[in-house]
Amino acid sequence: MASTPTQFSISISPSLKQQPIHLPSLQNPNFLHPHSFSPHSTNLFPKKISLSTPLRSPICASSSQLMDPFSAKIQPGVPTIVNVDLGNRSYPIYIGSGLLNKPELLQRHVHGKKVLIVTNTTVAPLYLDKVVDALTSGNPNVSVESVILPDGEQYKDMDTLMKVFDKAIESRLDRRCTFVALGGGVIGDMCGFAAASFLRGVNFIQIPTTVMAQVDSSVGGKTGINHPLGKNLIGAFYQPQCVLIDTDTLDTLPERELASGFAEVIKYGLITDTEFFEWQEKNMQALMARDPNALAYAIKRSCENKAEVVSLDEREGGVRATLNLGHTFGHAIETSVGYGQWLHGEAVAAGTVMAVDMSYRLGWIDDSIVKRVSDILKQTKLPIVPPEMMTVDMFKSVMAVDKKVADGLLRLILLKGPLGKLRFHRGL
Amino acid sequence: MASTPTQFSISISPSLKQQPIHLPSLQNPNFLHPHSFSPHSTNLFPKKISLSTPLRSPICASSSQLMDPFSAKIQPGVPTIVNVDLGNRSYPIYIGSGLLNKPELLQRHVHGKKVLIVTNTTVAPLYLDKVVDALTSGNPNVSVESVILPDGEQYKDMDTLMKVFDKAIESRLDRRCTFVALGGGVIGDMCGFAAASFLRGVNFIQIPTTVMAQVDSSVGGKTGINHPLGKNLIGAFYQPQCVLIDTDTLDTLPERELASGFAEVIKYGLITDTEFFEWQEKNMQALMARDPNALAYAIKRSCENKAEVVSLDEREGGVRATLNLGHTFGHAIETSVGYGQWLHGEAVAAGTVMAVDMSYRLGWIDDSIVKRVSDILKQTKLPIVPPEMMTVDMFKSVMAVDKKVADGLLRLILLKGPLGKLRFHRGL
Repeated sequence: MASTPTQFSISISPSLKQQPIHLPSLQNPNFLHPHSFSPHSTNLFPKKISLSTPLRSPICASSSQLMDPFSAKIQPGVPTIVNVDLGNRSYPIYIGSGLLNKPELLQRHVHGKKVLIVTNTTVAPLYLDKVVDALTSGNPNVSVESVILPDGEQYKDMDTLMKVFDKAIESRLDRRCTFVALGGGVIGDMCGFAAASFLRGVNFIQIPTTVMAQVDSSVGGKTGINHPLGKNLIGAFYQPQCVLIDTDTLDTLPERELASGFAEVIKYGLITDTEFFEWQEKNMQALMARDPNALAYAIKRSCENKAEVVSLDEREGGVRATLNLGHTFGHAIETSVGYGQWLHGEAVAAGTVMAVDMSYRLGWIDDSIVKRVSDILKQTKLPIVPPEMMTVDMFKSVMAVDKKVADGLLRLILLKGPLGKLRFHRGL
Repeated sequence: MASTPTQFSISISPSLKQQPIHLPSLQNPNFLHPHSFSPHSTNLFPKKISLSTPLRSPICASSSQLMDPFSAKIQPGVPTIVNVDLGNRSYPIYIGSGLLNKPELLQRHVHGKKVLIVTNTTVAPLYLDKVVDALTSGNPNVSVESVILPDGEQYKDMDTLMKVFDKAIESRLDRRCTFVALGGGVIGDMCGFAAASFLRGVNFIQIPTTVMAQVDSSVGGKTGINHPLGKNLIGAFYQPQCVLIDTDTLDTLPERELASGFAEVIKYGLITDTEFFEWQEKNMQALMARDPNALAYAIKRSCENKAEVVSLDEREGGVRATLNLGHTFGHAIETSVGYGQWLHGEAVAAGTVMAVDMSYRLGWIDDSIVKRVSDILKQTKLPIVPPEMMTVDMFKSVMAVDKKVADGLLRLILLKGPLGKLRFHRGL
């Protein structure tokens, strides 16, 4: 069922900014109605589109494809491994239940004798001791320090990042130390950027504890912090030594956070993986009920999808941009309402509906896709419209400083193609 | 005459820190006397040393070696090119007089339509207009913004760096923009780190205007900022598109800054380039008098030396560490006296004498080298002893957080070997 992600350029050069750009009327209850928006009356008409080779090449994963995931129950302490293939920066993602009880998994990736765990006030009481045990069990030569940051996207800023550097320097960490990110996407992004920049680069390990971090932010090496004017504007591409996903950590995740992560899971189905999307349509209730087998499968398949794309395009020169489906609108929402008001996945969900809707209005996809995206998001209780306070001008203003702008052209990822045909398109 | 740089490890692990480490008595007027310090009574005795292959492999430079540089006068507007060979991150260094009057040199390396010049309050009145002209002459599609930072090492910090990001974001720069560093080493390091981190990496160009920046900080991709507890503790390895060295910019350089740069020039001779050291001994007065041919030759040969080492070891896993001769002591001086009180080259000069002196006390070099280093530095009027206020404890404390510490071992670069034999050693 998945349609094709297409990169779509909107000019935001000064001369064109004076002309009206008719984004869908965001406060209009007919926003989702296909006839309320005509691309032919705007600057949004797409440039020439080229087709390239099919994206779905052999997946970079050592795990077997489970066609019926429920027939294979997960075993505590036994990881499924997804390898991210990036030459000498390749690394494994371990996925499974009870993995924090297996010290050897982490310890084989610790470099040097000193470790700094970066976590937050919510996660530390739940898992910090367990991670310290996993790092030090049978390994008395390693000393572990930790820095506990305030929790929330609003703290993903330079002032908070400096606390990581302060702690690292006070602890006299050296080039052979290892940083460990223990928490959600904010912690992973900040710890990763700190590791990229401390002494011009030290090793780091990701232990993501939210669905969002497990399926998205911990995979692919994007690290960074926000600027008051935009998300993730300051950062680095920097790969971890490994990612350890213990699905047991999801037991303590609030439902709103759980659903937020599913926005990214749904995205993978939409952009390249028809089977996975269809599986989700059947199993979203099991995911929302935290069925451990369903969760492990959804996380594994999401990581495989992301690993495949990242392996092809580490620094987002091409195909990796398709992972931004829904994200340009979504980032604009997060920036406009204030960081931390909407969860990232909530903004992405609303942004995905906007992108799907725009794709339909351009005549690029069938209306059945619009309905199915809306239906599956409703099962997760994620928002499918942007916040009422957001005007078109707010979207335009914030999107103009998005990273996906190049030489004045904003590249939007939209969907194109008949059902079930998985091809990658990009604007020329 | 050049001796051999050797990496030398001092343990600073907690257990050993309790034992006395007898650095030379820094406030003792006999500091330079070879018999005032015995390595055999301390923890400083060297570990086993291994010899590796000769460092002096074919130089990565397209320019010919000038055995008699004064026979070849430089021609205004005609650059000598030194190529830094780093695979797909290779770049040229253009060296010559009047190069800022040749717009095509810069413009061929500008990516995108937007440029941000990062400079300071001292350099902007002298050269900003000239660089804007060079970027825009015959090239009306490029828009140029600039951000003018306060001048001095004490501003190489996160607060000042944020002003670069603020300006870049306010100017709506996108991924295809180019940052241009116009100034000395501080500007180059900050602009480079800003370019490495803005939108996870944009293009940048270095236009160094001090000898120090021309022969050292603009070559090799080390970027970063200081932390109150240590120099360059936060940064990235990030290569420019090109380095443009217009030697005319040295006409306005204060004498103290000129001499500071010569500390690094002398270092290249000491660590690998006997001929160059001997040339300097004969021509230091011409350099101090700013003879344009002597300056161009010294800069070119220094860049060739650095390019060669960086090409072999971009991320300082091995041989590149030899470039740190004098720098561990030097950084300790800069950190202890307060950034900006001593110029970088002044601290390196005193640090080099400390390293040379320690090498001699270990029996690794002849006393004639100690004298020649002292003599050539005296010609430049650079300091050859550390500041009086610095105690051994201050050195130990600050050096313990130096980047060159790994797993509790501080790696000092010292000299070893008979005269004229150029071999690379490192501690095991």
